[in-house]
Amino acid sequence: MKEKLTVIKVGGKIVEEPETLNQLLADFSAIEGYKVLVHGGGRSATKLAAQLGIESKMVNGRRITDAETLKVVTMVYGGLVNKNIVAGLQAKGVNAMGLTGADMNVIRSVKRPVKDVDYGFVGDVQQVNAELLGDLIRRGVVPVMAPLTHDGQGSMLNTNADTIAGETAKALAQLFDVTLVFCFEKKGVLSDENDDDSVIPVITPVEFKQYVEQGVIQGGMIPKLENSFSAIDAGVSQVVITLASAINGQGGTIIRG
Amino acid sequence: MKEKLTVIKVGGKIVEEPETLNQLLADFSAIEGYKVLVHGGGRSATKLAAQLGIESKMVNGRRITDAETLKVVTMVYGGLVNKNIVAGLQAKGVNAMGLTGADMNVIRSVKRPVKDVDYGFVGDVQQVNAELLGDLIRRGVVPVMAPLTHDGQGSMLNTNADTIAGETAKALAQLFDVTLVFCFEKKGVLSDENDDDSVIPVITPVEFKQYVEQGVIQGGMIPKLENSFSAIDAGVSQVVITLASAINGQGGTIIRG
Repeated sequence: MKEKLTVIKVGGKIVEEPETLNQLLADFSAIEGYKVLVHGGGRSATKLAAQLGIESKMVNGRRITDAETLKVVTMVYGGLVNKNIVAGLQAKGVNAMGLTGADMNVIRSVKRPVKDVDYGFVGDVQQVNAELLGDLIRRGVVPVMAPLTHDGQGSMLNTNADTIAGETAKALAQLFDVTLVFCFEKKGVLSDENDDDSVIPVITPVEFKQYVEQGVIQGGMIPKLENSFSAIDAGVSQVVITLASAINGQGGTIIRG
Repeated sequence: MKEKLTVIKVGGKIVEEPETLNQLLADFSAIEGYKVLVHGGGRSATKLAAQLGIESKMVNGRRITDAETLKVVTMVYGGLVNKNIVAGLQAKGVNAMGLTGADMNVIRSVKRPVKDVDYGFVGDVQQVNAELLGDLIRRGVVPVMAPLTHDGQGSMLNTNADTIAGETAKALAQLFDVTLVFCFEKKGVLSDENDDDSVIPVITPVEFKQYVEQGVIQGGMIPKLENSFSAIDAGVSQVVITLASAINGQGGTIIRG
């Protein structure tokens, strides 16, 4: 039987403010067993870019990453946010190691081809080095992954944190019994968007289809759930969508195959 | 017999300009055997600080590191410079891994006590985790170390790159036959400061004393050589002071015990 591993993705807001970061680090530290943290940092990147007079352009929620913006995200995601988390976890006795995809070639990606939109230095994940990650994890190391990859030709690439979490979870599912947790600003997937307590506890593929047909699940939640089912199809045991404050407890919406 | 390991420290200027960086990465890639790269990044930090309206204050060549400056150096050293080097080495087939002292608790330091000068968030190295570094190195990983450590209590600390290189070399001397190379803007230690070719090929402790008494070696070179002899005393086999372009060849000044 495979050992349990939890991959937790937290968005920028939570890790960018000292109070919520401290609470997250405490909650994350308390999670038993093997674990991986994947973080964002978009707000800090936008803030630094603005301070440097660089305009932040977003298309479909993704940052257009020109050469100057790539420097900004490499500094913010790989430096500021990542090292704050790593130092914070070390202080709590968690043997954290910050990683971008370039480090030990953990995640190689390819620069997104230009179609309707030129996203610039944005990477689509090609390969996750699961053996190497798994080996580190089994040795007690807790990877803290920044949303950056590399192209194998010397360039860093900006890569969506949800994608990093999903692809990492899929790759590690070869080696571990993986739960993927997406932290969210709501308690879970809601059946009534006006009622924060209307959390749907479990969603299966059949139910997902029904909810979409009924209009209960709509908008940006649809691709999020499609990604979740894609992870399940690739061997991830379950995906949980929940509040950051609930990563170590019960609650949220569980996505099952 | 211990296996050979080369620890190379390169200053900011070399790693901060694309052309010199590319040459350095090619030269570094060609070094045979186990190796570690330690880099600076001061010029980029000063530049980013200026862009953000933060004044760079230096005392005795060391950066006064207030909270805002700590953010700047964490971004520049741990993010921008480190990841550029790592991605560049990966493209050359070197399995580089970027590390700050916080990552896997590789180097823990203590915030420098305030005496005449309050250096702020500057760390004095307390402990280098040689076993862990040695283990990674033996597995083919090439550590690329940023001049940042952590205090074990959640804070990153700005730490001089020469010190990181020296302390890492000393710690790894327990496990390897270590050569420590300080890259320099001259061909080596000169016997005549007006003649760039007057490189002193070898300096022993007795000769060092004589050169200092004669005034041949003076100024900032004295602490650099004192640090080198301190590394030798701690078990490092030799220290080389040379041009960055000569790290893979002969030349420079060899410091021997």
